Amino acid sequence: MGQKRLGRRTVQLTKNIGLISWASVVGPKEGSGPLASFFDEILSDDKCGCESFEKAEGAMMKRACDMALRKGGLTPEAVDVMLGGDLLNQIITAAFTARDYPFPFLGLYGACSTMSESLLVAALILESDGFDTALCVTSSHFSSAERQYRAPLELGNQRTPAAQWTVTGSGATVLSTVHPARQFIRAVTVGSVCDYGITDSNNMGAAMAPAAIDTLMTHFADTGRRPCDYDLIVTGDLGLLGAEIVREQCRIRGLDLGDRYFDCGERIFDTEQDAHCGGSGCACSAVTLNGYILEQMRRGTARRVLFLATGALLSVLSAQQGESIPGIAHAVVIENEVSS
Amino acid sequence: MGQKRLGRRTVQLTKNIGLISWASVVGPKEGSGPLASFFDEILSDDKCGCESFEKAEGAMMKRACDMALRKGGLTPEAVDVMLGGDLLNQIITAAFTARDYPFPFLGLYGACSTMSESLLVAALILESDGFDTALCVTSSHFSSAERQYRAPLELGNQRTPAAQWTVTGSGATVLSTVHPARQFIRAVTVGSVCDYGITDSNNMGAAMAPAAIDTLMTHFADTGRRPCDYDLIVTGDLGLLGAEIVREQCRIRGLDLGDRYFDCGERIFDTEQDAHCGGSGCACSAVTLNGYILEQMRRGTARRVLFLATGALLSVLSAQQGESIPGIAHAVVIENEVSS
Repeated sequence: MGQKRLGRRTVQLTKNIGLISWASVVGPKEGSGPLASFFDEILSDDKCGCESFEKAEGAMMKRACDMALRKGGLTPEAVDVMLGGDLLNQIITAAFTARDYPFPFLGLYGACSTMSESLLVAALILESDGFDTALCVTSSHFSSAERQYRAPLELGNQRTPAAQWTVTGSGATVLSTVHPARQFIRAVTVGSVCDYGITDSNNMGAAMAPAAIDTLMTHFADTGRRPCDYDLIVTGDLGLLGAEIVREQCRIRGLDLGDRYFDCGERIFDTEQDAHCGGSGCACSAVTLNGYILEQMRRGTARRVLFLATGALLSVLSAQQGESIPGIAHAVVIENEVSS
Repeated sequence: MGQKRLGRRTVQLTKNIGLISWASVVGPKEGSGPLASFFDEILSDDKCGCESFEKAEGAMMKRACDMALRKGGLTPEAVDVMLGGDLLNQIITAAFTARDYPFPFLGLYGACSTMSESLLVAALILESDGFDTALCVTSSHFSSAERQYRAPLELGNQRTPAAQWTVTGSGATVLSTVHPARQFIRAVTVGSVCDYGITDSNNMGAAMAPAAIDTLMTHFADTGRRPCDYDLIVTGDLGLLGAEIVREQCRIRGLDLGDRYFDCGERIFDTEQDAHCGGSGCACSAVTLNGYILEQMRRGTARRVLFLATGALLSVLSAQQGESIPGIAHAVVIENEVSS
C-alpha cells in the first residue's frame, strides 16, 4: 500500500498542488440567483451568440478556460494538460474546446461529478511529478441537457416536483505545483458506483444521495476526521431532496454534518426561481466552487473545505431499457495555505 | 518542469508499473479472424445471453474484468481503482460494470483511444504512489455502436468503401506497482485534439490519422528516439486507409515507421470478412493489445512496444450540426523486464 494512502479510497497528497486561478461563467437565470455576485461573467444571452445550445455550451466553456488562464496571468503554453468532460453525448463540449488550445487533453466522464473528478485525477497526476500545471473544466447547459436527456423544450412538458434545473454555466480551475497559490488540494477520496435501485430519472437527488453518503462515510473513516474538522462540506447537485437524504442518513450513521454542510443545488437558485428541487448539472457544483466557495476560502471565511460533486450514471437508452440509476461522488479536500 | 518530463507531452515513469495480467473477450466475427488464437474467450452469441446489445456489451466487459483478475490470481479487493470508458452515451457499459465491484471508479471518455487513455492515466496515478493497483478496461459492440452512431441494423444500409467495422469485444489490463510483472509501462505521451476538417463520419481513419501522426511526431521528438528503437509501433483503429495516411505522412516528415508499424484495424479482420477498411471501436485496440500484442511481448518476439489507441471525437448531434471530426491519440510505451 502506498504510504500516502489512507484507508481504501483516500490519498493524502504530499506535493503542494495549488489552485492558482479559477473562473465561472453562467447563464442569465443563474445570474439572477443568490450567488450572482460571485460569478466572473453572467451571459445576457444563453445562446452566447451561437446558433445552437450545444455550440453555446462550447463557447461558454471556452470563456471559462480563457478567463481562468487570464486571471492566473497564464498563457495557454503554461498549461501542461487539460482534464474535462460534460454531459453531452461523447463529451463534445470539452473535446471541441480542447481543440482550440495547444495543450493535450484527457477526456473524463463522471456525469455531474466531473468537476471533482477532474480535480482529483489532475491532483494525482501532478502528485506524480510528471506534469506541473493542469486545467480542469466542466460545463452544462439547461437547454442542451433538456433536449438530450428529457424532451424538446418546445413541448413545454410539466416538471415533476422532484425535478431539478440544469445549471447553464462552466467552471474552470487551474492546478499547479510551480505557480504561487494560497489554496491547495491536500487529499482526495475516489468515488464508488452506488445503486439503490432508483429508476425515476426526474429524481436525481435520490439516485445520487447514496453515492454521496458512501463517499462521505468512506472519507471520514479513511482520514479519521470528523465533520467539525471542515469549515464547509459541499455536495454537487443533490438538490433539496437529495441533500435532505444526505443530512438524515449521515446523522443516522453517526455523522452529524450540521450547518457546515450544504449542497450547491440548494444554493444556486432562489425558491422564487421555479427550479423545484434546485440546481443540477456539471456546472452546478463547478460554478459554485469556482465562484462562491473559492471566494469564501480567499476571504478566509472558510479555510478547509470538503468538496464532492455527485453524478448520476444513466443514459436515455439505459432508462428506456429499465435500468436503475447508479450514482458516484468524488471528493477533494481544499485547504488554505495556513490551516489548523 | 517535472524532472520526469520529456518535452511538452511525454512523461518517463520512474516506478515499476507492471502489467500484471490482462484479458480479451471477443464476438464470433472477431473469433473467426486472423487473431482468433490470441483471445481468451470467443463468444458464440454476440448477445452474450442478454436481451439487448447494450446489456451484452456490459456482460462482455464484466467477463473481461473477471478474467483479468482471475488470470492475475487477484480478488477484486486487490484492485484499488478501475479506470474505463466506452462508446455508448454516458459510458454506461463501464459505469454499470463498475457497479458490480467493490473498488472505486474513474470514468474516462476518449472515444476509441480509451484503452491507451486508461493505461496512461492509471500509470500516472500509480506513479503518484497514491494507489498500487488499477484495472483498465474498455469495450465496444458492433450492434450497439451501429444503432447509436449510424442507423438501425434492420435498415440494412449499404456500407461505404471507407467504412470500418466496430469490433465486438472487451479488453482489460491490470496495472500494479506491488505485484510481480514482466511487462512495464515506461513512458506515456498525452494526446492533443487534432482537427483537419474531415466531416465524413464513414471515414474515421482519415479523421483520426492526423492525431496519430501528431502524437507519433511528438513522442519521437520528446524522447529523442527513432522508430527502430521499438519492436512494434501500433495504432488503434485507423484501418487500412488511416494507417496508409500515417505511413505516408510520417515518411514525408522524416519518420520511416517501416515494417514495425501496424494498425489494429488492419489486423483484426481478414479481407474476406467484408469489414471494408478494417476494424474500429474501443475494443479494436483493446483486444489486440490484451490478446495479440502482450502475447508477443510475453513470448519475447517484441520487447518494446509503442501503443497508441486513436479516438474520433464526434457525436451524432455534432455531425448533424455540421461539425468536423477531431481526433486524439494517447501513447504508452510498454517494455519487457530486461530491455536493451
